[in-house]
Amino acid sequence: MADEKKGTIKLVLLRHGQSEWNLSNRFTGWTDVDLTEQGIREARQAGQLLKAEGLLFDIAYTSVLKRAIRTLWLALDEMDQMWIPVVRDWRLNERHYGGLQGLNKAETAEKYGNEQVLVWRRSYDVPPPVLDANDPTHPRFDPRYRKVDPAKLPSTESLKITLERVMPFWHECIVPHLKKHETVLIAAHGNSLRALVKYLDGISDDEIVELNIPTGIPLLYELDEDLKVVSRGYLGDPEAAKAAAEAVKNQAKAK
Amino acid sequence: MADEKKGTIKLVLLRHGQSEWNLSNRFTGWTDVDLTEQGIREARQAGQLLKAEGLLFDIAYTSVLKRAIRTLWLALDEMDQMWIPVVRDWRLNERHYGGLQGLNKAETAEKYGNEQVLVWRRSYDVPPPVLDANDPTHPRFDPRYRKVDPAKLPSTESLKITLERVMPFWHECIVPHLKKHETVLIAAHGNSLRALVKYLDGISDDEIVELNIPTGIPLLYELDEDLKVVSRGYLGDPEAAKAAAEAVKNQAKAK
Repeated sequence: MADEKKGTIKLVLLRHGQSEWNLSNRFTGWTDVDLTEQGIREARQAGQLLKAEGLLFDIAYTSVLKRAIRTLWLALDEMDQMWIPVVRDWRLNERHYGGLQGLNKAETAEKYGNEQVLVWRRSYDVPPPVLDANDPTHPRFDPRYRKVDPAKLPSTESLKITLERVMPFWHECIVPHLKKHETVLIAAHGNSLRALVKYLDGISDDEIVELNIPTGIPLLYELDEDLKVVSRGYLGDPEAAKAAAEAVKNQAKAK
Repeated sequence: MADEKKGTIKLVLLRHGQSEWNLSNRFTGWTDVDLTEQGIREARQAGQLLKAEGLLFDIAYTSVLKRAIRTLWLALDEMDQMWIPVVRDWRLNERHYGGLQGLNKAETAEKYGNEQVLVWRRSYDVPPPVLDANDPTHPRFDPRYRKVDPAKLPSTESLKITLERVMPFWHECIVPHLKKHETVLIAAHGNSLRALVKYLDGISDDEIVELNIPTGIPLLYELDEDLKVVSRGYLGDPEAAKAAAEAVKNQAKAK
């Protein structure tokens, strides 16, 4: 459906609000933790910003993790667009944090050193230690992945590996809708969204690891017919977006 | 995906809980009113009953009206199955109540007489007065139907007309999943669900208008390979289901 601003195609990326494990500062990855009360507020505020922008979405995408799904639900509710089609896909999940999932970030930093944790968190292609395939928290035991080829289910992921499963989903499932000039909302996670931002903005491997996407603040892209970026910007107060990105960045430092 | 009970296919029908206009006793139809607090509780209880039954759904269907969507969301949340695929379709909407939409049921009964209102509510094939095509509440002005062929959008519907748009959706979209032995949840409305019950249970035109589906109580069907009904029953306390159906029946009587 043609957008009001003729010729530009609109895409919004939305990172979920604060989750229970953000709060307890643990590596979350594919662990299905819920939003905190603050995360719920962030999601509602995101919906209000999208509503104020007057956006009418044709379709929304999210992961199979509840912190992203709930963020989407709350935003759609605020916009009074609960009725738009929603597609959930595991390829929009957060980066799988391997054997670090469930560990407290500060404790991990004390044990391995800030430097090693920063390598795991912020190197482009160094994955954390693998999660044992027999660990009960391995995705192969989770019913939500029972229709996914087990060979595709990760035991750990670097940002590079995350990108390698996000991008095929982008090209196969999202691009055809954008090409039809549809307005698209993607509610997902820090690293799956980083993969998209890296691609859209042509950011290098080194630079992307330094880029922090704030939680709960919609990032609006306007794209041309060839899906090249015409403009990009966070909705709402620019200072709020900056402060939120800074907060994310500081999260991993050992206390 | 094969179900635990080999050979039987499971289908659950769930009518949304109390809505704001159920409470004020107005004809709702396609008006997009929300659930009341009681409706929210009913939806959560439905989720608890489904959880207790140990059902793992492969896919869920709902209408494009928020009272059904929210009922589904709340039930999925209670079951911890927010991640299953959800398909929204206007063909699962409530029956369109034409020019009666927005009118108080008791007042309408006083004006037209109980008998005429009962004819509109409970005849199989007599639609209420049409909603004027230029009325701002006509579906052709609502963005959620902008991709639907305008010729298909109703200005009023009898139960028969409702059935005539529900059944193609059943056959085209839901049956293929059931044929694959998938477990299916449909969260919808009194009349769109009545259409399905009429078909599944082979109920006559005269009898279906007397059948009242209680709100917020999951109706579980077990089907054989040919999708013939092996068993049917409301989950939870049978007395509660009976009382809820009786409450629905009495709603239209003039006060």
